[in-house]
Amino acid sequence: MTGAARPGTAKAVAELAGVSVTTVSRVLSGQASAIPQETQDRVFAAARQLRYRPNSLARALRKGTTQSIGLIVPDISDAYFHQVARGVEDVAQAAGCVVILTNTDRVPAREEACVNLLLDKRVDGIVFAGGGIDDDTHLDGFDWSSTRVVTIGPHQLPFPSITVDDSAAISDAVHHLAEISCRRILCLAGQPNWLVTQRRLAGYRQAVAELGLDTDPDLVVYGDFTESAGEELTAKALAAGSFDGVIAFNDYTAIGAMHALASAGVRVPDDVAVIGCDDIPVARMVHPALTSVSFSQYEFGRNAAEMILGSVPLPAGQRITFPHELLRRHSTARR
Amino acid sequence: MTGAARPGTAKAVAELAGVSVTTVSRVLSGQASAIPQETQDRVFAAARQLRYRPNSLARALRKGTTQSIGLIVPDISDAYFHQVARGVEDVAQAAGCVVILTNTDRVPAREEACVNLLLDKRVDGIVFAGGGIDDDTHLDGFDWSSTRVVTIGPHQLPFPSITVDDSAAISDAVHHLAEISCRRILCLAGQPNWLVTQRRLAGYRQAVAELGLDTDPDLVVYGDFTESAGEELTAKALAAGSFDGVIAFNDYTAIGAMHALASAGVRVPDDVAVIGCDDIPVARMVHPALTSVSFSQYEFGRNAAEMILGSVPLPAGQRITFPHELLRRHSTARR
Repeated sequence: MTGAARPGTAKAVAELAGVSVTTVSRVLSGQASAIPQETQDRVFAAARQLRYRPNSLARALRKGTTQSIGLIVPDISDAYFHQVARGVEDVAQAAGCVVILTNTDRVPAREEACVNLLLDKRVDGIVFAGGGIDDDTHLDGFDWSSTRVVTIGPHQLPFPSITVDDSAAISDAVHHLAEISCRRILCLAGQPNWLVTQRRLAGYRQAVAELGLDTDPDLVVYGDFTESAGEELTAKALAAGSFDGVIAFNDYTAIGAMHALASAGVRVPDDVAVIGCDDIPVARMVHPALTSVSFSQYEFGRNAAEMILGSVPLPAGQRITFPHELLRRHSTARR
Repeated sequence: MTGAARPGTAKAVAELAGVSVTTVSRVLSGQASAIPQETQDRVFAAARQLRYRPNSLARALRKGTTQSIGLIVPDISDAYFHQVARGVEDVAQAAGCVVILTNTDRVPAREEACVNLLLDKRVDGIVFAGGGIDDDTHLDGFDWSSTRVVTIGPHQLPFPSITVDDSAAISDAVHHLAEISCRRILCLAGQPNWLVTQRRLAGYRQAVAELGLDTDPDLVVYGDFTESAGEELTAKALAAGSFDGVIAFNDYTAIGAMHALASAGVRVPDDVAVIGCDDIPVARMVHPALTSVSFSQYEFGRNAAEMILGSVPLPAGQRITFPHELLRRHSTARR
């Protein structure tokens, strides 16, 4: 080493590479388009040799960016959110940003804690995926002005959002069940206060009315989005009365329903046809393979991250609606 | 407001609550055990009213902790890693820490980039889950001294690790296949350079030799851990020769194998019995339900996070080995 600079400082790197400290800073922060490649290579080599790592905290304080995106999901164990998370992280990593993952379990206090943690970390943006409920006053007190927020799925928060037409998605599924002669369609909904339940239920009710199907209110039952809820609700419904179709508001619930039907000796799709929602990978692996409404979860995540990292301002009311598609498989394949 | 302090500063909060700035700082950083609850409540109320948020970046610079854990996984879309991630995040969130999620896709350059991002963020610790390979020289250049690292699964990195006995897990599975009269067991391994493949293959080879089963080297085939790899490898193996059992080194591969067998009209378990590994939730949902080796992924994550957040120093060679269990289901239920 030529000078007296401490190893592991920008000054030492500059001396070893034979450039200025400003050049070191520009090269290592990726703002070096005007600097010859050969010089850049020399800076990288020197930084590596001296194990120099710029202090990202000091940089963040100075520049007001932390190169980070917060991701809030109800539960990363739910396959619906895997592709969302991959979409967010792929975009973030390509941009040199990190993703901070938080799970809320759809518990308001935990949701509040997640937002608090992320604002405290001064993330550049937050992707708020799923979990919207009809009373989200627990999120009122926050000052969101320091960050960009994009919601995925129905939310009442006043931010740009990425959604699907939940009502039309379920209506399409009910129409398909009617085509294969279902008249009494059991609706396995989520919890009544979830916005996704409310939107999808509107689609179910509208389609049932349009098609002149049975509107028996006992055909609509509520649970969480687990396989066991689907199994229990369906077993109860079998004990209470008859139905010839099932529309479940997510795939786990539909798979639980198929287990209950199999246990009771009811044949799918011959006696009861079943449709799920989300088209998670397991939908095509179960037996019979599950007809499901497919969304573009990976694209939700990718687009949300790009909105946050983009230079374009986000209009508060901006909404991107992605298409859905009903994927027909064996669980509705009646002769 | 009584004084001239700017709103949104610690001074303003102190004035509104009628306490010192030091007390505000102690209460809001959770170091207030000696301060009366009533005073704490007043500080929280004042901070909320003034929308005061302590600058976590400045605090991190001052204290040398960022209250964050980095999590490196091959792919968060792989169900094996969901419970690991939940375990890490549950512990972190309870401690007021965030989890930074990164995916490597088992690509060395991407793995290097993830480590770089996390060290740059000065995370307090890194949970390095899965993805260990036999040549990890791409990770040599890093200065890890600023962070605590815990690995999950086989790794050559010199850090405390959480593992299972991969060799014994597969040996148990092969023994079960032998009990139900399998003699030629197709082994659907991961890539040859993955440490998990090497450990599990050792268990397969040892059990096959011990039990006097067919040691035909063509029975061992390599692929990635996807369903499609399992399907293709099994279809090729069916074309090339005969076998009466399958051990797959993860469940996705086993499920792909069952699809190939079904397409070829081969009955599971009567003609060919199948065992997977990891016991992801889909294992019990497929048809026939898949016998699988079960691990404690959630506990891996929970323990790794606790090791990082704990006050106890981590000895470099420390290893926690969790038990495994063979869960017998229909895919090996021969009469």
